[in-house]
Amino acid sequence: MSRCLGLLTGGGDAPGLNAVIRAFVKRGVGQLGWTVIGIEDSFNGLLDSPHRTLPLELRSCQGLLPRGGTILGTTNRGDPFDFPGPDGTRSDRSAELAAAIHDAGMEGLVVLGGDGTQAIAHRMMTEHGIPVIGVPKTIDNDLSATDLTFGFLSAVGVATEALDRLHTTAESHERVMLLEVMGRDAGHIALWAGLAGGADVILIPEIPYDAEMVAAKIRRRQEIGRLFSIVIVAEGALPARPDGTLPSAAERKRALAEGGGASVIAMREIQPHVDAEMRNCVLGHLQRGGSPVPIDRVLATRFGVGAADLVEADRWGEMVRLKNGVVGGVPLVDAISDYRFVDLEGEFVRTARSVGIEFGAQPI
Amino acid sequence: MSRCLGLLTGGGDAPGLNAVIRAFVKRGVGQLGWTVIGIEDSFNGLLDSPHRTLPLELRSCQGLLPRGGTILGTTNRGDPFDFPGPDGTRSDRSAELAAAIHDAGMEGLVVLGGDGTQAIAHRMMTEHGIPVIGVPKTIDNDLSATDLTFGFLSAVGVATEALDRLHTTAESHERVMLLEVMGRDAGHIALWAGLAGGADVILIPEIPYDAEMVAAKIRRRQEIGRLFSIVIVAEGALPARPDGTLPSAAERKRALAEGGGASVIAMREIQPHVDAEMRNCVLGHLQRGGSPVPIDRVLATRFGVGAADLVEADRWGEMVRLKNGVVGGVPLVDAISDYRFVDLEGEFVRTARSVGIEFGAQPI
Amino acid sequence: MSRCLGLLTGGGDAPGLNAVIRAFVKRGVGQLGWTVIGIEDSFNGLLDSPHRTLPLELRSCQGLLPRGGTILGTTNRGDPFDFPGPDGTRSDRSAELAAAIHDAGMEGLVVLGGDGTQAIAHRMMTEHGIPVIGVPKTIDNDLSATDLTFGFLSAVGVATEALDRLHTTAESHERVMLLEVMGRDAGHIALWAGLAGGADVILIPEIPYDAEMVAAKIRRRQEIGRLFSIVIVAEGALPARPDGTLPSAAERKRALAEGGGASVIAMREIQPHVDAEMRNCVLGHLQRGGSPVPIDRVLATRFGVGAADLVEADRWGEMVRLKNGVVGGVPLVDAISDYRFVDLEGEFVRTARSVGIEFGAQPI
Amino acid sequence: MSRCLGLLTGGGDAPGLNAVIRAFVKRGVGQLGWTVIGIEDSFNGLLDSPHRTLPLELRSCQGLLPRGGTILGTTNRGDPFDFPGPDGTRSDRSAELAAAIHDAGMEGLVVLGGDGTQAIAHRMMTEHGIPVIGVPKTIDNDLSATDLTFGFLSAVGVATEALDRLHTTAESHERVMLLEVMGRDAGHIALWAGLAGGADVILIPEIPYDAEMVAAKIRRRQEIGRLFSIVIVAEGALPARPDGTLPSAAERKRALAEGGGASVIAMREIQPHVDAEMRNCVLGHLQRGGSPVPIDRVLATRFGVGAADLVEADRWGEMVRLKNGVVGGVPLVDAISDYRFVDLEGEFVRTARSVGIEFGAQPI
Repeated sequence: MSRCLGLLTGGGDAPGLNAVIRAFVKRGVGQLGWTVIGIEDSFNGLLDSPHRTLPLELRSCQGLLPRGGTILGTTNRGDPFDFPGPDGTRSDRSAELAAAIHDAGMEGLVVLGGDGTQAIAHRMMTEHGIPVIGVPKTIDNDLSATDLTFGFLSAVGVATEALDRLHTTAESHERVMLLEVMGRDAGHIALWAGLAGGADVILIPEIPYDAEMVAAKIRRRQEIGRLFSIVIVAEGALPARPDGTLPSAAERKRALAEGGGASVIAMREIQPHVDAEMRNCVLGHLQRGGSPVPIDRVLATRFGVGAADLVEADRWGEMVRLKNGVVGGVPLVDAISDYRFVDLEGEFVRTARSVGIEFGAQPI
Repeated sequence: MSRCLGLLTGGGDAPGLNAVIRAFVKRGVGQLGWTVIGIEDSFNGLLDSPHRTLPLELRSCQGLLPRGGTILGTTNRGDPFDFPGPDGTRSDRSAELAAAIHDAGMEGLVVLGGDGTQAIAHRMMTEHGIPVIGVPKTIDNDLSATDLTFGFLSAVGVATEALDRLHTTAESHERVMLLEVMGRDAGHIALWAGLAGGADVILIPEIPYDAEMVAAKIRRRQEIGRLFSIVIVAEGALPARPDGTLPSAAERKRALAEGGGASVIAMREIQPHVDAEMRNCVLGHLQRGGSPVPIDRVLATRFGVGAADLVEADRWGEMVRLKNGVVGGVPLVDAISDYRFVDLEGEFVRTARSVGIEFGAQPI
Repeated sequence: MSRCLGLLTGGGDAPGLNAVIRAFVKRGVGQLGWTVIGIEDSFNGLLDSPHRTLPLELRSCQGLLPRGGTILGTTNRGDPFDFPGPDGTRSDRSAELAAAIHDAGMEGLVVLGGDGTQAIAHRMMTEHGIPVIGVPKTIDNDLSATDLTFGFLSAVGVATEALDRLHTTAESHERVMLLEVMGRDAGHIALWAGLAGGADVILIPEIPYDAEMVAAKIRRRQEIGRLFSIVIVAEGALPARPDGTLPSAAERKRALAEGGGASVIAMREIQPHVDAEMRNCVLGHLQRGGSPVPIDRVLATRFGVGAADLVEADRWGEMVRLKNGVVGGVPLVDAISDYRFVDLEGEFVRTARSVGIEFGAQPI
Repeated sequence: MSRCLGLLTGGGDAPGLNAVIRAFVKRGVGQLGWTVIGIEDSFNGLLDSPHRTLPLELRSCQGLLPRGGTILGTTNRGDPFDFPGPDGTRSDRSAELAAAIHDAGMEGLVVLGGDGTQAIAHRMMTEHGIPVIGVPKTIDNDLSATDLTFGFLSAVGVATEALDRLHTTAESHERVMLLEVMGRDAGHIALWAGLAGGADVILIPEIPYDAEMVAAKIRRRQEIGRLFSIVIVAEGALPARPDGTLPSAAERKRALAEGGGASVIAMREIQPHVDAEMRNCVLGHLQRGGSPVPIDRVLATRFGVGAADLVEADRWGEMVRLKNGVVGGVPLVDAISDYRFVDLEGEFVRTARSVGIEFGAQPI
């Protein structure tokens, strides 16, 4: 008898989700004869009544490869293990979800999502025996289990194009331009885009910065006739505390919210030390949208086929990933716990310093 | 004896300024044997000591056509007729400027700039006898003396690409996305980009909006299964006043500043009436930067040649402009006073309504 | 009773066709309550058995605005008045087509197409009484009845981007690069893209060129240290005849086919006169494909609404067009006969010469 | 005493060369105080009289990061060991070159180039004792010593965008479109772009194809209503020989030249077996030009810094390369001999087959 799988997308969208769906369906349905049922809006499509699912067939995949977003939607209304009801109370609806999966005849789930979504998938497996295969999705490329995630280089592309644009206007107006990009905890997008877009300063969450060191860089440029500067700021970047202590995650979140965001805080901190107009720009959701760049389409296609391979080999409980240039699987339980920060002693940071980029802190 | 002209760029930069410079130099220097001296940073290059000028030769133009910004800079440090001194006092330095122009051997000035810059140029002509030729520059396309200004369609291009990106993420997340674009007094960028990018709602300064009418449009879409909506907001758009009176320009400026900007105000006004997450994104300086789109490069080239034609014909006091598809000249004095708002009864607004776009107000 | 219209797309595709369809349906179906039936593959959808048509509803329009090509297809299998049969014989199937239109309950046809398609539409009207409204479609912008056609500036955009790319590689290798673009009879794409992309030489069908004059331009550049040159060649450009006579259209077509295409001929003619490597590149169908640029999306939307306006006003036999910045209608019979060549004495050619572009012939 | 290095770029240009130069100079000149002398047009700048060199200073690097091509030029007039004279005779000018390097006070050379250029550099080292550091440059990504070369993904980007464009026009016209991309011996660009751009068929030099198998794929698509197909063809792809033997390299070169190029041959071979119009498009030099994509800018920056690191460590005779995600060095002698073909049993080909892509041959 032919296999029947459920497939869903959860968490923030990333360019390439549709390309994964397409590749999985082309392989699973087109070549192996499976039935694949798309579940709408993460797990929610099976918690709503009536269920919101749609069969994924070859013709569903037409035009999907270059298309941003996800045709399955990703609107999360809650964790099935702690689902908010209309009256504000919360309840565990995971058993109901497991029953829905069984009733739909699904042998298992293929889950495209970030750490939150994968953690739920993992609980569905361990607590309810639902076989799952994970496909990692994080635009921040902050999952150490995989060398690269799709969507990341598309976001870097949007940020780099923005830096290119800001260069010409910053130079004409002799301004200091700050571009705020995604990266609440890890500064990979800021680091890559800063390198690709020729930023003079990169501020990332991993390196609490000294505003005066940043200003000194801007002044050094002015002294040699470069009257503008470009600063890229990850949304989680904050100045170092005067006393040298590190803020907790909660404190950082609060500081960012109260300060009006990372680039506003940076402007406020740096402005007193420099004699130049400063302006900021927040890229926001523009980084998530649009067609994936070619390398993301290729990676997403490899992940989609890789997920089908894991299903075919009954390697439930694994997540597809790229390691040393090859796509394979890794146990989900190992994958979801492992966060990747920017390596402060790694080649990337060292390369950035070697071309004169300032991080607002001394090298380690 | 060969002619000697000064050339400067003033006001906010716009994609195409360098292309104008290139065309003027190619024609004037390359074919007519003129000397062209670039003045740095608007009129300021001749007020600083030493003067900051550079000869514009054919080789200065290499690579200029596709390049954003302006090689002459546009950092305005003040109106020569009311120039701020280091001690905060202001003085009329226009006679000094006129003398510098004469001393440099310039027969006249070619002034690339917006209404502020052109008004100064006009005063230099009427009060100090400096011959001037104007080239209009407004990214907002809000000058009625010319059918089109370079830079405008490049800005529309950036805004349209942003709408394309927001579409995929808005759809995946079933959100209402607001994109704030330039347009303090006139909504041309919002109107064109809204049409080109498939916005559901366009909010412009010329049409004070009713937030409930906007919300009704969003709800109508939800009812037919379109669970996301895209709103484009000009930076000068504001809700209508409850009593139907129109705010003064000063009141509008204050309302925008205090409210946190047009898209923040729009979110706050509309959110209570709709059941959907709303997010905003402010494009800001991204709209000014980068390489001009082809039509802007063509128009800028035509304007550069047109300015040289006006000089050659000694039509001082005129501004180059496009009218009914042909580039020619118009007296500067007529040009600078004439603002173009969006025509509320014109074909564009009617077309937008015909494809279902909501402006938040009844048609006139 | 509600109106019922047929709508079809004919001839070579152009970016913006889908945007016209969308705007017409949004206005006609969404606001005026009409029924619109899409006919597949030009008139052929009604000549095949069974008929190939599809209802065009609001939901058919989702995602259509930025999408290249046409959802209705445009594969022409023949002129209904002279239709090729399987055995190679030809027959007049226009009466059969008229009957099919009546049987389908269509009050009239909205025809998106070039001169060939519009001529058929016009015959259907005059010989069979079928009411038609035309929407012009020519990527070459060679229809004098309208100031601009959608798709043209998208093609110019593709060609300009190609010129930008060729610049960097031509300069690195000190080569003469030829880019062949569309334009069998009119050189508008070459002229606009040449201006926008900084070509040194523009060769168009309207100006038979002297290869030695082109070579002289290349040599003049080499003498001042510009060791590369960029030539843009319309696909219909040919050298002037030695005896000064003009070739007939048939002779030109033959010369182009036998010579291997316009850019190959140009290389062969020019190479003996210059000391530099020459390479050519033929853009071909890349110019037709892809998402329309914003101004084409706007124009296509205006044309779609304009066509609906003509239907609503029962102005059958007219074609929508842009004239002096406003969309309106013109009798089809006038429109289809009027070809627009590049005006050899017009502002565009003069501007190009003013920035030093060589056409390979003396100015008129 | 401060170091003095020569730096040159050789072979076909690739997006990213300027970014390597910039990074090397920023590190070497800006931070380490070296003197860096750029040699124009590969080794030729030191063979011409007078020498053509230019000092590379920090200000030489302004604006270089996003710029395509190479400011040093790459026009090769001959191998110094076998240099063509004006009378057609050839002579060994390598000793003269070595003397020029010494006379210019260069401690060694940093050589950015492909296998030909690196082989010359290696001979200069072994035969004349000139210390060299190599930086690999091959747009084809066909050097097995490095996991990736800059320029490759930019070329893939151009090819993928072309496929996106061809899709819409192919679909509208129900055509089979062939896109010919670079890759004389290795099909990496075709394979990556084919995956990224949704090609139905990929033809590469490593897999001599059976035209009937390709046609069968196109027919299978027609049977399920997909009336168009997209074929990507590397410029070195050829049909399999009827007798199963493999042609020699010389035979292949001749076959391609005589046949009119890979895509023309493919059309001729496949057309008899399919009932659809076929059209081809040759991307050619468009793949080399233009601004590097962000990942290429990052890699080029890493290579530039990596080359400076090798110089600093006196690791002469090594070539910079990327291996397992880290930039380091490898002996030049090992690097230049090692060609990378597409791995016919590797994950990429298998992934392509898993999404239904046809290579025109049975899997191994």
